[in-house]
Amino acid sequence: PKNSFTKGVEIARQTKKIGQDDPRRVIHSLKLGLALTLVSLFYYFQPLYKNFGVSAMWAVMTVVVVFEFSVGATIGKGLNRGLATFIAGALGVGAHYLASMTGKVGEPIFIGLFVFLQAAVTTFIRFFPKVKARYDYGLVIFILTFSLVSISGFRTDEILDLAHKRLSTILVGASTCVIVSIFVCPVWAGEDLHNLVADHLEKLGNFLEGFGEEYFAGSVEAEFKDNKSFLVGYRSVLNSKTTEENQANLARWEPGHGKFMYLHPWEQYLKIGALTRKCACRIEALNSYLNSEIKAPEEVFQKVQEICTIMSKESGQALKELSLAIGTMTKPSSPNRHIVNSTTAAQNLESLLKSGSWEDINLRQLISVAAVASLLIDIVISVEDIAESVTELAT
Amino acid sequence: PKNSFTKGVEIARQTKKIGQDDPRRVIHSLKLGLALTLVSLFYYFQPLYKNFGVSAMWAVMTVVVVFEFSVGATIGKGLNRGLATFIAGALGVGAHYLASMTGKVGEPIFIGLFVFLQAAVTTFIRFFPKVKARYDYGLVIFILTFSLVSISGFRTDEILDLAHKRLSTILVGASTCVIVSIFVCPVWAGEDLHNLVADHLEKLGNFLEGFGEEYFAGSVEAEFKDNKSFLVGYRSVLNSKTTEENQANLARWEPGHGKFMYLHPWEQYLKIGALTRKCACRIEALNSYLNSEIKAPEEVFQKVQEICTIMSKESGQALKELSLAIGTMTKPSSPNRHIVNSTTAAQNLESLLKSGSWEDINLRQLISVAAVASLLIDIVISVEDIAESVTELAT
Repeated sequence: PKNSFTKGVEIARQTKKIGQDDPRRVIHSLKLGLALTLVSLFYYFQPLYKNFGVSAMWAVMTVVVVFEFSVGATIGKGLNRGLATFIAGALGVGAHYLASMTGKVGEPIFIGLFVFLQAAVTTFIRFFPKVKARYDYGLVIFILTFSLVSISGFRTDEILDLAHKRLSTILVGASTCVIVSIFVCPVWAGEDLHNLVADHLEKLGNFLEGFGEEYFAGSVEAEFKDNKSFLVGYRSVLNSKTTEENQANLARWEPGHGKFMYLHPWEQYLKIGALTRKCACRIEALNSYLNSEIKAPEEVFQKVQEICTIMSKESGQALKELSLAIGTMTKPSSPNRHIVNSTTAAQNLESLLKSGSWEDINLRQLISVAAVASLLIDIVISVEDIAESVTELAT
Repeated sequence: PKNSFTKGVEIARQTKKIGQDDPRRVIHSLKLGLALTLVSLFYYFQPLYKNFGVSAMWAVMTVVVVFEFSVGATIGKGLNRGLATFIAGALGVGAHYLASMTGKVGEPIFIGLFVFLQAAVTTFIRFFPKVKARYDYGLVIFILTFSLVSISGFRTDEILDLAHKRLSTILVGASTCVIVSIFVCPVWAGEDLHNLVADHLEKLGNFLEGFGEEYFAGSVEAEFKDNKSFLVGYRSVLNSKTTEENQANLARWEPGHGKFMYLHPWEQYLKIGALTRKCACRIEALNSYLNSEIKAPEEVFQKVQEICTIMSKESGQALKELSLAIGTMTKPSSPNRHIVNSTTAAQNLESLLKSGSWEDINLRQLISVAAVASLLIDIVISVEDIAESVTELAT
């Protein structure tokens, strides 16, 4: 019993954390409950549908499967479901009609053939990446509805009556979802993508801002000890591709909202995201030097150290400024002061290195500093690319 | 018309490519068609269900939504659907019974309350990462079934009859899916994960094997020109996290098959995958030096060049050997000859650099070689980690 008690405490703790990490999750749960209750009570009270669970069922089913976390996902699924049901229903009636003309023997054969063919073809179409991104759910519903209608064995006029009822219930369900998701504390996929991209830039910026001191000074540990989170924040950026692409796909379904117009250039965020990941990969390589034991002797490298610290700090600040520019949807100042500073520092570093006043150096000690300097130069280039991309977004 | 003709050609070309990239996609489409046709004809011919679309409908629906590309996904969805329907159905009957005891006025209120509460709570549970990974679909079906049963307004004995019919049709649908997916050209998620991890190691190996020559010789371009694919293969590794985690989740549902026992240590593949991505990130950093214009003058760096080429080649071969060991499920030879060689080379490099016979060097020219050498040292360490992890998998 004690074991299960600690387990219960653990679950309670986790529940609290999940709710606190993103309070919109709690709101989303309540919203789904609301939409479902609205639809089910509507059908419960309709005397027309009393004791006739089938139609109400379709509305309830639609709400459960269509209601998603973001507005974009909800609209996308709703449209997919509605359109697919309509088209597949019409084609299914046609197939059923064709098959029934072939007589009692031919009918099941032809129906089997039609069902097989459309299922196989539609399933294959689902593998097209572009189709999968936007219409995957619609194709599933297409297979479903087509099969149901063509094998139902009803007469054509019965089917039409059924189709009318089913479409209208789906319409009720889907529009309840869309209305609740838009008007009760909406969660916009586009806004999430926007914030995510800005947040990632800020995380990289935080790392770079702190990196120089952390690496070269090395001994600030005691001071920062309980606040090293800025050194690991960049990691979540590395694996963000799927999330970002998903959000961009969903955002395309959304109407204009807040600061975003309909058909906001969501692809541009993906470009910035890709550049950000590239930069994060370089930061990952940089990070491995933080924990390496071989540090350069301070006397010789003071000059390098100074310049590298500037490069790291300035490019970090540049990223944070870009993040802010995205956040506030303003055009980033151009030329950006921090980028200019970091580029100048990179040039200084290059000429310093070229000057060649480096005799009697233990190369093994140089090598890690050299690698860091080289990575920092690459990062400065990365930051310039990102800045360009952000500017493009703002125009 | 010409425009739509070229578009048609483009679609045909893409269709062919999608089929050729993975012929199992074509087979999967046919399998779904087969399962669907089997189930629909079964219900079409059953005189019991003639003109009674509802029950047949549930079997068809189950097939369409449960049949997935891999066996693991199909079994997972089938079990989720079956269990969730059963549990939610039982609870729904209970809720309906409780609500009906409160009389004509209380009933709709209580039913609304129950539906709201269970929908909100279950939706929130879906946010738990561990639950989402394995039981997400089950929870959706739970909400669906519970709501349907509790608002259906049937009498309890009617509900039991309906529940029996529905469960049995779902059983027929789900088992058809599982049987077809296991016995007709099965696609195992576990095997896919296994091959994916091995394939990723091989891609990194290919890069490293070729990198040394490519970077230091520089002029082999003419020779290799049309076969540079080994230099970009590693990129697909960088974003593989989501895919691998998905596959591992699905693989857990699968029974033993081929070389894999039930409950094969799939997590170990995720560990190897994470290390592989870390290594790929370093390779990405390395790759940026391939196209940089500043190359070291050959006279001075001949020694470094030689050792780096050995490190790169040997660690590449080590990775390819590990990939092969995974592929054939044998224990990698230990100590691995290539790893020993690359570690020795790394040590030689360190002592060479320490010897300090490096006067009159243009540091700017050194710096990129130094960075490459340093990254290669890190990569050798990465490869050792991977080797350890692969050995652990084999035992």
